[in-house]
Amino acid sequence: MPETESAIAANDAFYSAMLTCDFDLMDELWATGVPVNCIHPGWHNLVGREAVMESWKAILLNNAPPNMTVHEATASIYDDLAVVICSEVFPDMTLVATNVFVREEGEWKMILHQAGGSVQSLAKLGDQGGYLQ
Amino acid sequence: MPETESAIAANDAFYSAMLTCDFDLMDELWATGVPVNCIHPGWHNLVGREAVMESWKAILLNNAPPNMTVHEATASIYDDLAVVICSEVFPDMTLVATNVFVREEGEWKMILHQAGGSVQSLAKLGDQGGYLQ
Repeated sequence: MPETESAIAANDAFYSAMLTCDFDLMDELWATGVPVNCIHPGWHNLVGREAVMESWKAILLNNAPPNMTVHEATASIYDDLAVVICSEVFPDMTLVATNVFVREEGEWKMILHQAGGSVQSLAKLGDQGGYLQ
Repeated sequence: MPETESAIAANDAFYSAMLTCDFDLMDELWATGVPVNCIHPGWHNLVGREAVMESWKAILLNNAPPNMTVHEATASIYDDLAVVICSEVFPDMTLVATNVFVREEGEWKMILHQAGGSVQSLAKLGDQGGYLQ
């Protein structure tokens, strides 16, 4: 599988974990041997695997799956690192997400997620409750 | 210079370009040989060097320097890639930025900037005019 396709497949798995509220899959997808960071829309930066996974546990286990589809995922490969940028499309708003993956034992594992949007988008996301701090 | 320090120095140069509205320095700081992306706060994803540099030209040449200081910059190195995350602190709000650099001819060059914040932060940034689409 070409590298861009395998990176986009890893990105798809990340959103599959979000859309099925599958914490175990989410946990598998994040790198274990290198630093990781996560910036949910409107949140501060979460540093380190423990803080990042705690945030996903709170999001995935306490909320209904988001009504979202993922579009326009493009991957850029820099040796053992992949930067995937995509649109998170909700019924009435769109966020932009950067997802960065590192190759760990031959598999793309996540090291960074940052999602953000316009003032209007974030305000609407806040209305859905639970996702914004 | 340790790799984390040189990556943070590149990050400092990026903010120096912003704070002095120095477009030529900004232009020098972005990679030329690999894909680049830029997601300004509240903007959509800008793809490719031409679109990214046009946005910086519009921002740097048409606005007063932002009243901002940069704090808590931390760099994580993954071989020839550096991920720097920092806080962009304005007088009454804070954004979080991810800046990713690749080593190009021995120097850290930018491939990605994404800045975002809370609903409240972005609304305040919008009040300053010019920076948000």
